[in-house]
Amino acid sequence: MRIVVLTGGIGGARFLVGVRAYAREVGAEVTAVVNVGDDLLLHGLKVCPDLDSVMYTLGGGADPERGWGRVGESWTVKQELAAYGAQPTWFGLGDKDIATHLVRTTMVNAGYPLHAVTEALADRWQPGVRLLPATDDRLETHVVVELDGGQRAIHFQEWWVRHRGDVPTHRFVFVGAETARPAPGVAEAIAGADVVLVAPSNPVVSIAPVLAVPGLREAVADGPAPVVGVSPIIGGAPVRGMADRCLAVLGVECSAAGVGRLYGGRPAGGLLDGWLVAEEDAGSVVPEVTVRAAPLRMTDEAATAAMVRAALELT
Amino acid sequence: MRIVVLTGGIGGARFLVGVRAYAREVGAEVTAVVNVGDDLLLHGLKVCPDLDSVMYTLGGGADPERGWGRVGESWTVKQELAAYGAQPTWFGLGDKDIATHLVRTTMVNAGYPLHAVTEALADRWQPGVRLLPATDDRLETHVVVELDGGQRAIHFQEWWVRHRGDVPTHRFVFVGAETARPAPGVAEAIAGADVVLVAPSNPVVSIAPVLAVPGLREAVADGPAPVVGVSPIIGGAPVRGMADRCLAVLGVECSAAGVGRLYGGRPAGGLLDGWLVAEEDAGSVVPEVTVRAAPLRMTDEAATAAMVRAALELT
Repeated sequence: MRIVVLTGGIGGARFLVGVRAYAREVGAEVTAVVNVGDDLLLHGLKVCPDLDSVMYTLGGGADPERGWGRVGESWTVKQELAAYGAQPTWFGLGDKDIATHLVRTTMVNAGYPLHAVTEALADRWQPGVRLLPATDDRLETHVVVELDGGQRAIHFQEWWVRHRGDVPTHRFVFVGAETARPAPGVAEAIAGADVVLVAPSNPVVSIAPVLAVPGLREAVADGPAPVVGVSPIIGGAPVRGMADRCLAVLGVECSAAGVGRLYGGRPAGGLLDGWLVAEEDAGSVVPEVTVRAAPLRMTDEAATAAMVRAALELT
Repeated sequence: MRIVVLTGGIGGARFLVGVRAYAREVGAEVTAVVNVGDDLLLHGLKVCPDLDSVMYTLGGGADPERGWGRVGESWTVKQELAAYGAQPTWFGLGDKDIATHLVRTTMVNAGYPLHAVTEALADRWQPGVRLLPATDDRLETHVVVELDGGQRAIHFQEWWVRHRGDVPTHRFVFVGAETARPAPGVAEAIAGADVVLVAPSNPVVSIAPVLAVPGLREAVADGPAPVVGVSPIIGGAPVRGMADRCLAVLGVECSAAGVGRLYGGRPAGGLLDGWLVAEEDAGSVVPEVTVRAAPLRMTDEAATAAMVRAALELT
């Protein structure tokens, strides 16, 4: 059995822990297609927050409390950068984390495509699932906001980390999306999948940038495998993160049904065959999509694997 | 009074502490022209060991025991790079130190010349002397050695740090020297100097690469200011470092007189008017150079300032 997961963010990383556990149980292969829209250059380093969250989380190196970055992290470089007055100061890179970015940046500057760099980094972490960036090309989520008395486009991380999304926001733009190509292996994995899962990630800034890679949405929507999504919204609120702010920008109701309708049913030109919502959201209706309710709190690996099992029962 | 110091290495950095102390006493201005031959790219970072040694030492941030790098340094990034199997592993970058290289690399990649980057970094450290790289251009000391059964040219740092100079060595080559130009301000500082001091640095791999910048040796040798050197060799041995190995490659006697003769007297087409040697080396003879003996151990700032005073008495 071959499972493909569209994923991004910390929720997506944690979901993959359950997918891996399930896959080990049944002997399935897992390919994670990971958002790169959050990627940015910081102090000359290529930082891929979503790929790293997945890699660290599955590799046992993530900080379980903070959610992002490395466990047992130290911040010497960050303090020193601040002592030099280096900008920006609103995004903190930990010392352990910086080693990852140094290796990645060196490889990227030497001409290696991101999927090859990702594979090389994963060699250390042995995540137990195949990690693929959605694209090797530059595809960056920018946010058009009102700031300093005018309309400006800022990098998603500046909107998210610096402003906590708390600034008048017009829309999200996936810079570079028009010319991006799926990373090698992505289209093949989707075409050969027995099921495609949409992780309970932020639909607007984690999943949408994956689907914005030309051909990728079509590969999923028109592909042979059933597609099941898991709601990131429980009882009208995101489990973590700021999906509520992101959905508001799109004018989409922050509810399990709202996100399900945003993805849409495949017969109606959308993405989903099935939509797994939390028990709190039982009764949610998404046209032309089979909706089922199950416990959706990813409290531990077993609970998360149970979610995956429930999602797969929708196929 | 304007003092120019040709310098490199840890001995040169410590000597500058004495020069600064002397200069403060008499109200002099100091310009240090610093070797860049040791500079290298490591994990994509531009590292300038000699500029940093001077900056950290004068800025109070150097490790006094180790001699190089930052006091209170930690090594998290280094350990993590090793966990990734990143090469090379023989050159250790400390966490604090890495922040310096990140700022420098970002500025260099943004197009700033090295002297401007050096000035920006020094803004934090307030070294109290003007720091100028000998050149903004690439000028790298490589070493032609016998290795793995053949003749190879390796970077100076690989020879020095990895092999501890303990490999059959043919010669030193200053890659890029033919086309390098003195950094802005260097020729002007030398032309306007009241005295040029040659620090007790390694003559072969710290001072020679400075003088290898086209026009720089001539600016000193044909300039208006008297030139006084301080011997890095005391009683036939380098105070620290491996000047003995380097001198042996050139077939130069490892003695105060040997190094003095290597620099040569100005009337004979060499560099020096005066040569300050250690008391142990009193009686050393360098043709056409005034040689004087004084205590040369840089045990503290006062002792080093006294050395500077003795050197200036030779003018």
